[in-house]
This record gives sequence, structure tokens and C-alpha cells, in this order.
Amino acid sequence: MNYKDLNKGDLKRELESLLNEYNEYKNLNLKLDMSRGKPSYEQLNLSMEMMDVLHSNMDLRCEDGIDCRNYGVLDGIEECKRLLGDIIEVPKENIIIYGNSSLSIMYDCISTAMTHGVLGSTPWMKLDKVKWLCPVPGYDRHFLITEYFGIEMIPIPMDSNGPDMDLVEELIKDESVKGIWCVPKYSNPDGTTYSEEVVKRFARLKPKAKDFRIYWDNAYSVHHLYDDHQDFLLEILDECKKAGNPDIVYKFTSTSKISFPGSGIAAIATSPKNKEYLLNHLKVQTIGFDKVNQLRHVKFFKNLDGIKNQMKKHASIIRPKFELILNLLEENVKDIVEWTKPYGGYFISIKTPSIAKEVIDRCRDLGVKLTEAGCAYPYHIDPNNSIIRLAPTYPTLEEIKQATNILILSIKIEFIKKLL
Amino acid sequence: MNYKDLNKGDLKRELESLLNEYNEYKNLNLKLDMSRGKPSYEQLNLSMEMMDVLHSNMDLRCEDGIDCRNYGVLDGIEECKRLLGDIIEVPKENIIIYGNSSLSIMYDCISTAMTHGVLGSTPWMKLDKVKWLCPVPGYDRHFLITEYFGIEMIPIPMDSNGPDMDLVEELIKDESVKGIWCVPKYSNPDGTTYSEEVVKRFARLKPKAKDFRIYWDNAYSVHHLYDDHQDFLLEILDECKKAGNPDIVYKFTSTSKISFPGSGIAAIATSPKNKEYLLNHLKVQTIGFDKVNQLRHVKFFKNLDGIKNQMKKHASIIRPKFELILNLLEENVKDIVEWTKPYGGYFISIKTPSIAKEVIDRCRDLGVKLTEAGCAYPYHIDPNNSIIRLAPTYPTLEEIKQATNILILSIKIEFIKKLL
Repeated sequence: MNYKDLNKGDLKRELESLLNEYNEYKNLNLKLDMSRGKPSYEQLNLSMEMMDVLHSNMDLRCEDGIDCRNYGVLDGIEECKRLLGDIIEVPKENIIIYGNSSLSIMYDCISTAMTHGVLGSTPWMKLDKVKWLCPVPGYDRHFLITEYFGIEMIPIPMDSNGPDMDLVEELIKDESVKGIWCVPKYSNPDGTTYSEEVVKRFARLKPKAKDFRIYWDNAYSVHHLYDDHQDFLLEILDECKKAGNPDIVYKFTSTSKISFPGSGIAAIATSPKNKEYLLNHLKVQTIGFDKVNQLRHVKFFKNLDGIKNQMKKHASIIRPKFELILNLLEENVKDIVEWTKPYGGYFISIKTPSIAKEVIDRCRDLGVKLTEAGCAYPYHIDPNNSIIRLAPTYPTLEEIKQATNILILSIKIEFIKKLL
Repeated sequence: MNYKDLNKGDLKRELESLLNEYNEYKNLNLKLDMSRGKPSYEQLNLSMEMMDVLHSNMDLRCEDGIDCRNYGVLDGIEECKRLLGDIIEVPKENIIIYGNSSLSIMYDCISTAMTHGVLGSTPWMKLDKVKWLCPVPGYDRHFLITEYFGIEMIPIPMDSNGPDMDLVEELIKDESVKGIWCVPKYSNPDGTTYSEEVVKRFARLKPKAKDFRIYWDNAYSVHHLYDDHQDFLLEILDECKKAGNPDIVYKFTSTSKISFPGSGIAAIATSPKNKEYLLNHLKVQTIGFDKVNQLRHVKFFKNLDGIKNQMKKHASIIRPKFELILNLLEENVKDIVEWTKPYGGYFISIKTPSIAKEVIDRCRDLGVKLTEAGCAYPYHIDPNNSIIRLAPTYPTLEEIKQATNILILSIKIEFIKKLL
């Protein structure tokens, strides 16, 4: 039934019936969570043998003979740089391995720029104004970092090819614009992969600010949902080099959603010049990161094939969850909302007719936690109150079914209320 | 033979003989390193069973049921906060567990203060001048952090009770003085433990700057060399609380020299108010640290007794190395230099008659690497060219014997050259 075709009386009767249904859920005291992109218990079990690959009778030296247990080796052990380089298609010479979180690396890069500038530029704390480009909808934790440092965020609309590059090219003429957040593959939350043309335009950017950097968060590089349809993303470092623009990009990756989220390894890939600059700062900050964990990851995954194999197992657990949600939406609310059908990544994004906050609040009242309204936008301001982000990976299929049904019910209720 | 009693002719003949001996070493092409406080291979082997305590058939939930493999728990799992709290004698409620490096925590605390101030104070980057008190001789990597952030370092002389507290109390009347580096137990490099009176005076400090913090790097809290003689350090957090000064101190610790240096866990202990402030910043920076490694440490050490037991094993490996150096110095150069006889920690400090740099250079020429001259002082300026830091833990006994003999030879040569 398409609510737009109903008259007021029919709508009121439908609303009453939906509210009755809604109230029945109240007694169930549900506690469901589709708010965060966390792997499920089953997914975590895929990496349990990583706990066995190192043991007490083993030599914990890495391939060049360095004892991984002791201090030293600031940029990571060779075999681990190679593994992470293979995941994001860059030579190991461009890699620095950090601790367990790529978000921390991004934070560090910005923090260092605030206090020390970038490759000799003025520290950003000494400037009157620093601005940042934020493709929207985007990742809330990115926006939180730039907000935290008092950086003015400018939303950049996204379409199915990626960010609006005309606007990006225009805005970088402003010297106070120092960077842009990108999740270029299976983007959070839209699942968009930037087109070849968009990547090439990124590589050719000539910003006024010499210390402008593209923060290329390749969080979902191997996180496909399907074997037979996978998005392709042009490799940015190589494109930048070809465009005579080698230093413009920081590319990030981690194993957070490949092995264990809290106990994985994260890396940056960048030009030799940027790498040297970063290491010069990093050597003040630490003597080195956890090489034993680097070795553990290499022993477990061995190589890119090992990673791909693992990602297929992840996909087989995740895929039915995505499909369940997509099918339920298709069956129930296709006349009210639009949504993305990603081929990878961790999210489904729903575009509502300006009822996002009301729907999310209503779901919460029944114990269904969704990501906070506005979270996909700088300062939590979704100008159209439109986007709801769903994170299908963590709950079980049964939980997803229940949560999605409540979501659907809430969408219907809020939509009718809006029509009335 | 006391060189001071010899006449010039005898001194010249002695010098010639020493130089002959020195030149013979040249052909050996030695490569010995007594420069860094690194555990030895044997010491690292003490923790190898830590590689077995977690395995694939195990439940990796911590005691409150949280899955350590997934995201979350910003301040660390309860049992690990308790373990690290026990090591440094504070309740677990005061603890935040970070990654693998306490140095990184100190860096983060200062970096955050530079960009965001401390508990609402003006960000230090916005001040004309920030100053820091540096007890000397001290830890080079501390001084490197403050130097990196452009903080003006003021040396504070140390004696066997700790820093000159009269001077500290005078200098903190200056509002631009924002902190002090302390290694209060078995200090680097002197092996000094601060007296009860010194700790109490620290706890009672009333600095002009409300954002002044004592950086209390308790790196060697359980790192005793002897069973029967152990230094005692008054617990600073409790003293500060009693003195009505609860927020003045950040206390740091890590397992770097208990388990594996690169793959341990590090923590800060501080007041509830400071902890809340730090967590509010930290939540922007990361989703959480490596909880699997936290769990691994708890499963391996179990409790404080497990830690103490491990430290006894470390001591039995390290102690002969310290004693070998001390005996060789006593037999050979007691009329030329003075040195510390620490009951714990990682260093022996030699006080020379202003020949430190020359001795260190001479050792390097024979392939014996010692910590760089001046390293124990801010800006690498040892005003008396006096201090040589020895790190006995990493080399074997045989290597130490050879390195110390070369050191002794170099001391003798440089001393005679000075006399002539």
C-alpha cells in the first residue's frame, strides 16, 4: 500500500493500527544494537588461530633477523609492511606500521600538523583559521577529530561517483583548506566507491596550501560482500605520483575488520618524503610499535591470498545480514525511503523524507539502538534530517530481523504522521 | 697506581703503554653496545610462555564478560587495571591502560596540553613561553619530547635524595613553568630513589600554574637488583591527595622491562578528575587499545606475586652484569672517576673529571657504543662534560667485560692527557 494514495481517514486508521503494533513491542524490553560497525562473534572466531601461531618454543625474530620482542624498528617489520602494502596495493617502502588503530594515525597526523605543520609549513595552531573538506554523508569519527582540533568543516555532497569534485577543486583555492576526509571504497555509510575519474581528479589537485593532504581512509579495501561483483578503486598513491603530485596523499588501512578490531595492526602509506617527515616526528613519540603482533599477523595470514580467503569467510557471515535488511526494506518501505545496496563495507544508508531523527528516537524507545541522527555529518547536522545509518554486522540474523521490523514500523509511523 | 702522584715523565710513559694497549684493540673490530636500556635475549626468554596463555580454543572474554577481541573499553579491562595498579600501588580506578609505550602516554599528555590545555587551561601553543623542570642527569627521551614541543627546559640538580626541592619550589612560582620530569625510583641514569621528604615536598607543591603537572615516570618500580636491599619510594598519588593536591600528578608505568619491551602494556595513574579529562580527549583519538594483549599479560602474570617472581628472575640475570662493571671500575679507576651503585633500575652512571665526551668518542673508535655524551641533559649539554651512562643489561657478561675494559682504558688515557 502506498501511503501517498490514501486519504486522511485511511491514514489515521493505518497509523492507529501501526501504533498498536508499536506498543506491543514495548513489553518485550528489547535490547538490539545496529549502531556500530563491529564484527560479530562469529567473525571474530575466524581469527582465533592467530592465538596459536606464536608459541613459547618459537624463534620470534623477523625475516631480517631482528628480535620482535625487543625495542626498535620504528616503521614496522619488513614482512608486515609487505602484507599491509599488498592489501592496499602499495610497495612496502611506502608503509609505516603503527599500533592497533588507523583512526589514531589520522589523529596523530592532524595533531602533529597542529603543533609542527607539515613538511616545514606553519603549525596550524598558529594560523587564524584551518578548514577541512568533509564529503557527506561520512564517518562520524573522522569529523570528531577535525571538530576536536577546532578545524572548520565544510560538507561536500557525494554522489554515486564520489565527492563533488568541481566543488573540491574550487574550495582548495583557499589556502586555509588543509585537507579532506575520504573513505574511497565502500564508503561509510553510503557504500560508494570513487570512480576512476574522481580518483584521477584527486591525484591532480593543486591546492593553494602546500600542506594540504588527502586523508584517504581505505578502511574497506578488501571488504567485499560478493565474489562476482566487486567494486574497483584506482590506486591513489600511484596516480598522485604520475600526476607529479606525490606528497598530497596519506593512505590509511588496518586489519581491524580483518582480524580483531582492538588487537589488529594499522598503517599509513605515503610518499618517501612524507614518510621521512612522519618518522622524524614519530621517533619522539615512541621507540616502536608492537612487532610481536605484527609477526603474529604475518604468520597467520601469510600473504594477500590468506587475507582474501579470510575476507571470503567474513563475507559469507555478513552477506545474509545485509540481504535480510535489504529484502525487508524492499518488501515494506520502498515507497517511503531510498537506500544503498553496497557491494562491500560495513553499512547500509537509508535516505528518509526528513524523518531520520524521529525514526531513530522511536526505535530507541523500543530498545533498538541505531547510530545517532546527524552522525554522518559535520557537527552532527544533517541539513535534511534525512540519513539513517545501519550497521548490520554485529547482531544475529534474528536480532536484525526484529530490529529492522521495528525500524520499518517506525518509518511508516513517522511518515504517516508527516503526511497528516 | 694513582696518576695524580706521578711526575710528567712517568705519566708520559704510562700514556704510551696505554695507547699501545688501545691500538691493539683496534684490530679486533669489536661491535659492543652498552648504550640503551634494553633487556637481553635471556631476559626476553623469561616471558616466552606469554605466547601460550591465549589459544584458539579459549574464551577471550575478560572478567566482566566483555569480548577482548572486539572494539571498546577505553580505559582498559578491569583485571589489567588491577594488575598495573598493584605494580605501582594505586587503586585500579585511577588507571588508564594505553598501548605498548609509557613514553607515548607522556608524549600524548604534553601534545594534548599544547593543543587543548589541561582541565580547561589555555592551550600551551597559545602561550608565549612554556617552561619545564628537568632534574639532571635524567632520561634523554623525556628531554627530547619537551624539546620537540619547543618547551624551555631548566635543569634541576639532583643529589642522593632526589631533585633540589628548594629550587623546584622557587621556580614553580613562575606561571610559565608547566611541569617536571621525574624518574623517582632507581632513576635513569643515577639509580637514585627520591627520599620520603622529597616525595612529600612534591605532593605539597603549590605551583602558580594551575595546569602544572608532575610527570612521575615510575619506570623501575619493581626493578630491584637485590632481594635483601630494595629502595623504598613513597606512593605519590596518595601523598598528593593527603596534601589536598590530588590533581597535580601523572604517574606512568609499563611492562616494557617486565615482559617484552615492544609488546607490553603501559598505563597512567592519576586523579579521577584528570582521568576523566584524559579520557575525554582519548575518545577522539582511538576506539580503544589492545585488550587481547592486556588479557595476555594478566593470564601470564596473574597478580603482583607473579610480577615479583618474574622480577627476581630478571634480577638474577642482570645483577652479575652490574657487579662485573662495578668491580672492574673499583679495581681500576677508583682514583679517577666516581660512579653510582644502584639497587635497581637499568643504569650505572659514571661521573668523570670533565672527560666524558672524549672517553665516549674513544670507546666508539674501538667499536664500543655508549650513550651519546650530554644525553642525560636537556639540549644534550652536560655543563661539566662529566656524565657517562652505562646500560649493562643487553650485552653478555663477556661483552661487558671487554667493553668495560675498553672504557677503563679510555678513562685512563683521557685522564692522563688531561693531567699532562
